[in-house]
Amino acid sequence: MDQNKVSRVLKSMEEKGVPQMIVSDPVAISYLTGKWIFPGERLLALYLNVNGNHKMIINKLFPQETDLGVDIIYYDDIEDGVEILSRYVDKDKVMGIDKTWPSKFLIRLQELGGGSKFVNGSPIVDYIRMVKDEKEQELMRESSRINDIAMERIIPWVVKGLTEKELNAKMREIYKELGCEDVSFDPITAYGHGAADPHHVTDDSKGKRGDCVILDIGAFKDNYASDMTRTVFIGEVSDRAREIYDIVCEANRRGIEAAKPGNRMCDVDLAARNYIEEKGYGQYFTHRTGHSIGLEDHEFGDVSSVNEDIIQVGQCFSVEPGIYLPDENIGVRIEDLVIITEDGCEVLNHFTKDLIVVPEE
Amino acid sequence: MDQNKVSRVLKSMEEKGVPQMIVSDPVAISYLTGKWIFPGERLLALYLNVNGNHKMIINKLFPQETDLGVDIIYYDDIEDGVEILSRYVDKDKVMGIDKTWPSKFLIRLQELGGGSKFVNGSPIVDYIRMVKDEKEQELMRESSRINDIAMERIIPWVVKGLTEKELNAKMREIYKELGCEDVSFDPITAYGHGAADPHHVTDDSKGKRGDCVILDIGAFKDNYASDMTRTVFIGEVSDRAREIYDIVCEANRRGIEAAKPGNRMCDVDLAARNYIEEKGYGQYFTHRTGHSIGLEDHEFGDVSSVNEDIIQVGQCFSVEPGIYLPDENIGVRIEDLVIITEDGCEVLNHFTKDLIVVPEE
Repeated sequence: MDQNKVSRVLKSMEEKGVPQMIVSDPVAISYLTGKWIFPGERLLALYLNVNGNHKMIINKLFPQETDLGVDIIYYDDIEDGVEILSRYVDKDKVMGIDKTWPSKFLIRLQELGGGSKFVNGSPIVDYIRMVKDEKEQELMRESSRINDIAMERIIPWVVKGLTEKELNAKMREIYKELGCEDVSFDPITAYGHGAADPHHVTDDSKGKRGDCVILDIGAFKDNYASDMTRTVFIGEVSDRAREIYDIVCEANRRGIEAAKPGNRMCDVDLAARNYIEEKGYGQYFTHRTGHSIGLEDHEFGDVSSVNEDIIQVGQCFSVEPGIYLPDENIGVRIEDLVIITEDGCEVLNHFTKDLIVVPEE
Repeated sequence: MDQNKVSRVLKSMEEKGVPQMIVSDPVAISYLTGKWIFPGERLLALYLNVNGNHKMIINKLFPQETDLGVDIIYYDDIEDGVEILSRYVDKDKVMGIDKTWPSKFLIRLQELGGGSKFVNGSPIVDYIRMVKDEKEQELMRESSRINDIAMERIIPWVVKGLTEKELNAKMREIYKELGCEDVSFDPITAYGHGAADPHHVTDDSKGKRGDCVILDIGAFKDNYASDMTRTVFIGEVSDRAREIYDIVCEANRRGIEAAKPGNRMCDVDLAARNYIEEKGYGQYFTHRTGHSIGLEDHEFGDVSSVNEDIIQVGQCFSVEPGIYLPDENIGVRIEDLVIITEDGCEVLNHFTKDLIVVPEE
């Protein structure tokens, strides 16, 4: 286990009155132990106790060859893993539960009286994951550096007659060439009509002259996610689309400007949103301004109007305002990742935000 | 909603003393409503009540354009979806919970007193899903018919110098050509050493003369899964490997023979297992004999030594004994799907089980 991270978790458990908790999310377990274990539908539980009596419950199908720095208790498919886990817990104390733990396990643990009260323990780990340590920051930088290159490589393909699905496949190929493990989410490669619909599903449409093209792309490099959006145009750009582009670009800039320690997460959202509203397009900015990111593309910590958490040094999140005008087939979104520094933030994406018109072939 | 399926669920809820339940698994929701909705981390809940007061709670991000035959209650990201759900439940009655429902929702529902007692409600739906209706049986047949073709197409590639990963990619291509939506699990394309290890992860190994090659493959066609395994040999087969092959083949035949109404699921496992034990290889058959299959590759209902459920007409499951001798680089598994009929079973896979030696190029 990463003693530094585990110590931060144990300290937070003390402060929050959660003396024991179960971590089951494979991503959170990897964060704390450095080891990825994907148990499918089977029980996998890292049990943490402020008294130091930590245990890891793992199915025998996933034998661990390296020392994870925690006692491992194996069970097999004909044993009741939750019952085995319950032997180690303090039955008279509050138990924190991973937000994603399947209910079948929680219901069984409750039947066994495995705690005096059950609470969602995930915020404890999530708030700690939100603040990246130096090594993680370096990995986030590297992942986004590669994403800048990926953006540069995909844009020339936009107008070569590829359908959205083909452009999506091309995107995946580029990440593979660049040595990424996988995309961090299904790439959005949406032309015109699709770009104007935030719920659009990638289809067989092709782009045409004047279309805006939303490229919302990211990948995992050494397990850390990138995520960036640029909107480019095919052949020409109308005055109307240029106006929208400039507004979104300025909203992105204002969001980034508000991303600094001491401000609240909602201040970043409001900085972008207020500007778009001021320009008369508030109702067309239909989503939150961003999300935290790290080992997952979407991590705990929204950049939204209702998140009043104070921003801390080391946080990493996206700033991605957009305007969508379905009746005019115009959609523009511009997204960068930032890491919060002592006096503001470092923008991880360096790909230009100047308006790009890709020449028609 | 599919009234026939929902009626079967409501009848079972009455019988099992679960007057209300929450179904959240997108596959189970699709089974009951015909509609696939993937809400990611957001709340999606089909609330069923034996009094007929059914509701579906859906995030506004997933607007439904067709009538699902159930009242839809929408919520948005700044609302508490579970609180909204709790307004419709009978707080003084037992509540069934979907086994996969994330604990964050169950803990919130418990805080709100949304039931007098919480039990795992999934077996109710799972036992019903286990028995396929005629339309489903037809879809399972068609999916496996295509899988027979896929097996025929992949075998000639086995010895063309492809690595396991390349063979895996080729397999995916073949399914795409055959009009399948996706693979139903990551195809296993394992040579020699890898074939002898049931936990082997597809790697860059290439096959060599004398290798056994396990091809465990399946895909989704019209949402229904196929799954078949054949073991072939490159260039030649040793007497030892042929002996193992014949034993596994006979174990597969005996398992299929035991797959009939009135027998227990464990009888199928034992028919295969006892034969392998009798031949002296019991300790090398390290997994259960099979699993139920339908909308998912692995559904509720193991073919294992501990499942004493009586087999019913309409069930569909795999029969897949194997013997793995890691020290000799020999691994053989042979798998077919069956549908239980009035007097036995129908085998869905027709690809030959005669031992195949693929000529070296």
